[in-house]
Amino acid sequence: MFKKILYPTDFSEVAKKALPYIVGLKGAGTKEVIILYIIDERGIDSFRNSTAIDALAVEKEWEELALNEISSLEDELKEQGFIAKAQINKGIPFREILRVAEEENVSAIIMGSHGKSNIVEMLLGSVTDTVVRKAQKPVLIVRR
Amino acid sequence: MFKKILYPTDFSEVAKKALPYIVGLKGAGTKEVIILYIIDERGIDSFRNSTAIDALAVEKEWEELALNEISSLEDELKEQGFIAKAQINKGIPFREILRVAEEENVSAIIMGSHGKSNIVEMLLGSVTDTVVRKAQKPVLIVRR
Repeated sequence: MFKKILYPTDFSEVAKKALPYIVGLKGAGTKEVIILYIIDERGIDSFRNSTAIDALAVEKEWEELALNEISSLEDELKEQGFIAKAQINKGIPFREILRVAEEENVSAIIMGSHGKSNIVEMLLGSVTDTVVRKAQKPVLIVRR
Repeated sequence: MFKKILYPTDFSEVAKKALPYIVGLKGAGTKEVIILYIIDERGIDSFRNSTAIDALAVEKEWEELALNEISSLEDELKEQGFIAKAQINKGIPFREILRVAEEENVSAIIMGSHGKSNIVEMLLGSVTDTVVRKAQKPVLIVRR
C-alpha cells in the first residue's frame, strides 16, 4: 500500500516537513523512496533569452546546488534504512511529478502543501494543487 | 504521526477506497479512526422550502440510512482492531471536516479524491479540494 514512495521536493521548508511522515510510514511497509527535484525548464528558458546572463553557467550552478541538496536527502533516507534514489530532471514540475509517478509505478506521492513563495503559484495554483487534481496515485499532503 | 485518523465519507465508492489505506497504516501506528458523515444542511434547507415534500420525514430517513452505513464502517474498522468512533453531523461538509479535524486534533485526514457525482462539485470544486487547501493537518487523498 505504501511500499514505494515518490517524494518530490523543491528543498523548501514545507517540502522538508514531509520527511518525518515518510520515516513514519516504514512500519506501514515503505521500503523505497524516490526523491525528485525538477529544474523548471521555463526558468532556464528565461535566462537563455537574456544577453546579460551566461545561461549555461547559471544552469550548471543550479544543477550543482540541487545535486548537493538531493544527495544529503538521499543519505538521510538511506541512514533511516530505506532504498533511496535521487533524480534531478528538467521539465515542468507538475508534469514531471505525474510522469515519474506513473513510470516508477509508485504506491503514493508525499509532498509539501506548497513550494517556495512564488507569484506564479499564487496566481495559478501550486504544483501541489495540480498534482492532487491530476495524479492517479494517492497523494499525502503535509502542511507547514 | 498517524495515530488518530479522521475519515470523512459520503459512502461513495471512492470514499470506500480509503479504507484499505487506513488499515495499511496500522503498522505506522494508527490506533483510532473517527468516521465522519455530514448531512449537508443546504440539502435539508432545500426540502424545507418545498411544500410538496415532508422535510422532517426526509431528514429522518436520511439520518437512518446514514446511521446504517456508518455503523457497518465502524464495525469493519473495529474488526480490524482500531478504536473506531462514528459521527453523523449536520452542516456544510468541508467546514465540518475541518472543524472536527481541529476539535479532535487528528494526526491526518484520509479521504477519497471526490464524492458522489454532483454538479455543484463539478462547478465549484469538490469537498476534497477545499479540505486539501484549507486543512491544517496532513491529508491523504485516495483515487478511484
